[in-house]
Amino acid sequence: MVASAFLPELWTEILIPVCAVVGIAFSLFQWFIVSRVRVSADQGASSSSSGGSKNGYGDYLIEEEEGVNDQSVVAKCAEIQTAISEGATSFLFTEYRYVGVFMVIFAAIIFVFLGSVEGFSTENKPCTYDETKTCKPALATAAFSTIAFVLGAVTSVLSGFLGMKIATYANARTTLEARKGVGKAFIVAFRSGAVMGFLLAASGLLVLYVTINVFKIYYGDDWEGLFEAITGYGLGGSSMALFGRVGGGIYTKAADVGADLVGKIERNIPEDDPRNPAVIADNVGDNVGDIAGMGSDLFGSYAEASCAALVVASISSFGINHDFTAMCYPLLISSMGILVCLITTLFATDFFEIKAVKEIEPALKNQLIISTVIMTVGIAVVSWVGLPSSFTIFNFGTQKIVQNWQLFLCVCVGLWAGLIIGFVTEYYTSNAYSPVQDVADSCRTGAATNVIFGLALGYKSVIIPIFAIAVSIFVSFSFAAMYGVAVAALGMLSTIATGLAIDAYGPISDNAGGIAEMAGMSHRIRERTDALDAAGNTTAAIGKGFAIGSAALVSLALFGAFVSRAGVHTVDVLTPKVIIGLLVGAMLPYWFSAMTMKSVGSAALKMVEEVRRQFNTIPGLMEGTAKPDYATCVKISTDASIKEMIPPGCLVMLTPLIVGFFFGVETLSGVLAGSLVSGVQIAISASNTGGAWDNAKKYIEAGVSEHAKSLGPKGSEPHKAAVIGDTIGDPLKDTSGPSLNILIKLMAVESLVFAPFFATHGGILFKYL
Amino acid sequence: MVASAFLPELWTEILIPVCAVVGIAFSLFQWFIVSRVRVSADQGASSSSSGGSKNGYGDYLIEEEEGVNDQSVVAKCAEIQTAISEGATSFLFTEYRYVGVFMVIFAAIIFVFLGSVEGFSTENKPCTYDETKTCKPALATAAFSTIAFVLGAVTSVLSGFLGMKIATYANARTTLEARKGVGKAFIVAFRSGAVMGFLLAASGLLVLYVTINVFKIYYGDDWEGLFEAITGYGLGGSSMALFGRVGGGIYTKAADVGADLVGKIERNIPEDDPRNPAVIADNVGDNVGDIAGMGSDLFGSYAEASCAALVVASISSFGINHDFTAMCYPLLISSMGILVCLITTLFATDFFEIKAVKEIEPALKNQLIISTVIMTVGIAVVSWVGLPSSFTIFNFGTQKIVQNWQLFLCVCVGLWAGLIIGFVTEYYTSNAYSPVQDVADSCRTGAATNVIFGLALGYKSVIIPIFAIAVSIFVSFSFAAMYGVAVAALGMLSTIATGLAIDAYGPISDNAGGIAEMAGMSHRIRERTDALDAAGNTTAAIGKGFAIGSAALVSLALFGAFVSRAGVHTVDVLTPKVIIGLLVGAMLPYWFSAMTMKSVGSAALKMVEEVRRQFNTIPGLMEGTAKPDYATCVKISTDASIKEMIPPGCLVMLTPLIVGFFFGVETLSGVLAGSLVSGVQIAISASNTGGAWDNAKKYIEAGVSEHAKSLGPKGSEPHKAAVIGDTIGDPLKDTSGPSLNILIKLMAVESLVFAPFFATHGGILFKYL
Repeated sequence: MVASAFLPELWTEILIPVCAVVGIAFSLFQWFIVSRVRVSADQGASSSSSGGSKNGYGDYLIEEEEGVNDQSVVAKCAEIQTAISEGATSFLFTEYRYVGVFMVIFAAIIFVFLGSVEGFSTENKPCTYDETKTCKPALATAAFSTIAFVLGAVTSVLSGFLGMKIATYANARTTLEARKGVGKAFIVAFRSGAVMGFLLAASGLLVLYVTINVFKIYYGDDWEGLFEAITGYGLGGSSMALFGRVGGGIYTKAADVGADLVGKIERNIPEDDPRNPAVIADNVGDNVGDIAGMGSDLFGSYAEASCAALVVASISSFGINHDFTAMCYPLLISSMGILVCLITTLFATDFFEIKAVKEIEPALKNQLIISTVIMTVGIAVVSWVGLPSSFTIFNFGTQKIVQNWQLFLCVCVGLWAGLIIGFVTEYYTSNAYSPVQDVADSCRTGAATNVIFGLALGYKSVIIPIFAIAVSIFVSFSFAAMYGVAVAALGMLSTIATGLAIDAYGPISDNAGGIAEMAGMSHRIRERTDALDAAGNTTAAIGKGFAIGSAALVSLALFGAFVSRAGVHTVDVLTPKVIIGLLVGAMLPYWFSAMTMKSVGSAALKMVEEVRRQFNTIPGLMEGTAKPDYATCVKISTDASIKEMIPPGCLVMLTPLIVGFFFGVETLSGVLAGSLVSGVQIAISASNTGGAWDNAKKYIEAGVSEHAKSLGPKGSEPHKAAVIGDTIGDPLKDTSGPSLNILIKLMAVESLVFAPFFATHGGILFKYL
Repeated sequence: MVASAFLPELWTEILIPVCAVVGIAFSLFQWFIVSRVRVSADQGASSSSSGGSKNGYGDYLIEEEEGVNDQSVVAKCAEIQTAISEGATSFLFTEYRYVGVFMVIFAAIIFVFLGSVEGFSTENKPCTYDETKTCKPALATAAFSTIAFVLGAVTSVLSGFLGMKIATYANARTTLEARKGVGKAFIVAFRSGAVMGFLLAASGLLVLYVTINVFKIYYGDDWEGLFEAITGYGLGGSSMALFGRVGGGIYTKAADVGADLVGKIERNIPEDDPRNPAVIADNVGDNVGDIAGMGSDLFGSYAEASCAALVVASISSFGINHDFTAMCYPLLISSMGILVCLITTLFATDFFEIKAVKEIEPALKNQLIISTVIMTVGIAVVSWVGLPSSFTIFNFGTQKIVQNWQLFLCVCVGLWAGLIIGFVTEYYTSNAYSPVQDVADSCRTGAATNVIFGLALGYKSVIIPIFAIAVSIFVSFSFAAMYGVAVAALGMLSTIATGLAIDAYGPISDNAGGIAEMAGMSHRIRERTDALDAAGNTTAAIGKGFAIGSAALVSLALFGAFVSRAGVHTVDVLTPKVIIGLLVGAMLPYWFSAMTMKSVGSAALKMVEEVRRQFNTIPGLMEGTAKPDYATCVKISTDASIKEMIPPGCLVMLTPLIVGFFFGVETLSGVLAGSLVSGVQIAISASNTGGAWDNAKKYIEAGVSEHAKSLGPKGSEPHKAAVIGDTIGDPLKDTSGPSLNILIKLMAVESLVFAPFFATHGGILFKYL
């Protein structure tokens, strides 16, 4: 008999929801502060002259800039903000309509497939792992899995939607604050990011916690069935993330590439110029792709990592001994994470103040470092009070003895690996370091060498992150089998609130710059928003590296849970079934990327045609005397992304079902392992290549050093070459690259949910051959 | 007791060398025919007026063209040919000097490492697989492995060198024959390709056969030790191929990219213009990269597949029962392949005659189909006479019973999978089909969309080949374990003579076109050589697809042999050691590609500077009144490629040693499997993307259809975008892509050779941790 955790069950039952509620409250508080920046549109777009005299913080803060009281600018900002917000809302509603249909169908599939495991019997059955006990019928698990799936999906959709709403609420406010100084604007953008980060982390935790407790009323002592049903939550979250990432990714890049190809390259007008008909679509894209998509993605990772950990724990000593506190260890880690991130946020918003442009990037990077350091202490506390000093973990058929300090190390190794991946990503994508400067330099000889160097940079940037992930896996796997990997993933995701705040900050600043340009604000304000945006570019790359790293750990943990649940004890590469699965699995990321990249290309071509048409047929457009038809461009992006997200979506959702049903769990294991090890490489290299090209272009444009000046200015031959690279990088870094996270995670969690079905009815091709 | 083969041992002993000698004789005969085309340089470059009146076939064949008797053209061609040949020879000698040093060091490593397995004991020991028998000491195997390594290396070097010599001997002859018509030129180019194909296939077989028989004198009945020592042959062949592919690949693309960037893009002069200082280096590159490199690569595959099959056979019933004919089944397949290819060649050179441009590509494709169909019959014959009707195959610790018809199917499935891969590659890279036309069409919106579509095309082109390889693996693995996979690889490589003939045809035609341009021959002749070259481009892509497909099968077979030899019975993904190996292994192709692409980029930049310097400082160069300094450009390419081939070479050669020594055979198994499943995807996508860009550009240039005309002509904006794509594709398709074949094969064969060492002394990190 093993000891139970130090923390009493009642305390656990109280602490987790309290932390979640604190997170939500903090998020609302941040929103309240942001809302104090007034945008006249709040009082209705028609009454643009009212309520503008104070502008939030009061006059004593107006330190520097002209035009703070210029009501026409405020009105214009409000108008643009409304247009962006409406475009984004309309797209998301269209997307959710399609996704809703999918959800209903897939919920039915889950219910039917899982229900059929025991032939829809309503009788209790012996448990899978302990045949002396009685567990709830498979039909119940089917029903509860379906409910969990819907809950996960709805939470994910809400997270994405609210994130988008907050972002479009904050962008014009950031622009207006930029009139007062870069520090003020930074705070608004960062607080808005924090709203999203905390809301998402806390509500994800709360919904999961409540669901577990409600399900427990029915399941009682059958924790095996309970946590099996809970995995539906991860599947729901992640399948919505798929559509969010892919649909949003295609939307944003079709608009961006289309706008750039005609605007920057053909017409020679600046980015975000209001004369460009695709400019609103471009700004909408930032919100639906980078905000809603990223939000759903990280929410999915978080939900999946928790589910993977819980399902393995339920068949380990925590579950067998019904030690609720230890069972909730993954949730305790996340709860602690919310508190840690809360403290971390204060460092950026209250303890220090940004006064100069060069302080922005360090401030954001410090957020990562501070949260990691404090969280290390937090993990130690949780591991000490939340775990028995010694316990056993299910390890593919056997139980492995683990000490609490070993589990502490598992979580830490994930947390710190995330930081390492973040900094390596920064090194390869920030133009402060030589890799991006080399890429910029290669623009001297044209676009071709720029592309060659950029691709090589992306490939090279894979090396250290892969070693970091490999070490995390080795340590956590050796200490605590797949449970260790799952908690390592949770460790990496424990500071998700801070990570998301930083991520969301980027597109908000980007939009703020766009609004400044479109509202015709002065060059100086535009410079400030550009500075905010440049820092955001690097942090966006860091965020992507982070998302990919956690996705790799999460999908391995899910894979382990799937294999455990499907009753497979070895996945031997030396069998034909596994090796072909491995080979085909490694091919899937390529197939998927081919689809998403081609989609962006095709959608961008349509956009280009429309933009050219408007320039050619609307008289006075180039002169700025006539307004372009923004709505048609928004519609093109919406239609194209909805249409184009279906084939890649089907590929991801159907592959596990087809492989599992026809070829069985062994081949499916191979496919999961293959797509994991191959996908993570393409995902990292694609997003870093794209990030590097983007910043190489910005390096030339900014012209800060002698070297950069020798390549510029805007419009020079090297700059043109850099713009081509940037355009190529757009779908790589914002569509195909990040979508691959979802591919590898989603196939794994889907396999896990359907594991009982595959174990019973799968592999029919080999059965009858 | 199992029956032995129908074919008596004596017949086997006679038939194999006879087939090899027939192949060599046929090769020499083709050379003789080619040599009858006179190039005045044969009589010394100084006496350029002599011996030109007849020009080979006699006057009755001179059907069409002007200038056949123009001695100044012949002299000029001879001069250019000499320059190319000298450049290539000088590069290869430089390369071989470095490679020689490597060979000596590595031979010493092999001897010491393998000798240390039994502590350099000279006493006989019990056999590994049958402990009742006595085998030769490990020290003997160390010595013989070292000898086999050197033999393999020397054969590979000779194959590459002779191939290059033949190609540079044939290129001017092809140009001169083009004056008489496209059919005549085609025959010369194709015959020269055949010289190389047959010489390589036959000499590879003969050396291997003789080595086995000589080693057998010492080893006697210890077939286990004998064939273990023989694997050194594969390692030798493949390690030379590494340097050939990487060094040659960097050479050719540095020159090509450098020449294009200044010549085509900056100075607006045509390809192969003699005013371009890098033009000779570019033509040399075709010979050292595409001919010598490809020759070594396929020779390596062939040697490795044979070794993998032999080593597995030696511990199966063939080896245990000392059934020599059945043991030599892999060699009998190759012998039959030589005869089949001989007949196939006659279809191109004697049975039919090319009369029009449009017949060229079908003629080359028919070669593939004819050889595959005849070979299917050939395999049936060999399987019927060369195998007992039933036998056992070693399957990771157990013996599996196999029928001869099952083995027939294994070989066939490899052979036909090769054909499928070939045709899919053609579909994605030939501009006769929609994928390349779509890529060409995307050039309308500039280089960025061209690159996006091209990358997507490459990713998509992976799908069917991977399924073809997966089916081959599944069928052959299920029927006959790793022996089945090895003979499937041999099946794919059985028509290697024809495959190489087609491959070598491409660069010869490319060079012929270059010589025509440089010698100032008429537009009509240049059109003919262009037509030959265009067909060669597609077949080159087919050849690369073929090389990658066979590399995948070969390395899996080698992996299986390694695992058997190292005494591993399962490679379980569900262990931390294996999964981290898999993850890191999947990363290696990215690391390797980053190195090779960056190398090409850097070397090309150096070339660009030199070419610009010459244009700027040599007066009269652009006007054609002064000659450029070709030699400096040749030297830049040579130096750069030698210097740059060292880091990727070290990565490939050291990885198995480091992983095996420190982490042990399980992690090494993971690394091999990971690099295999990941590398094959990048290799296919990289070479198809590059091929598609090249042909998209040619499609626009040729302007055959209405669609193509709307994109052209040369110099239009879409054409410029296409040129950028082509330049990016150069390192992908000719350096990093094909080099990955070697990466996956070489790491596997190296692991196999060092398997006894790793099994004894490997994994020290885990032993002491």
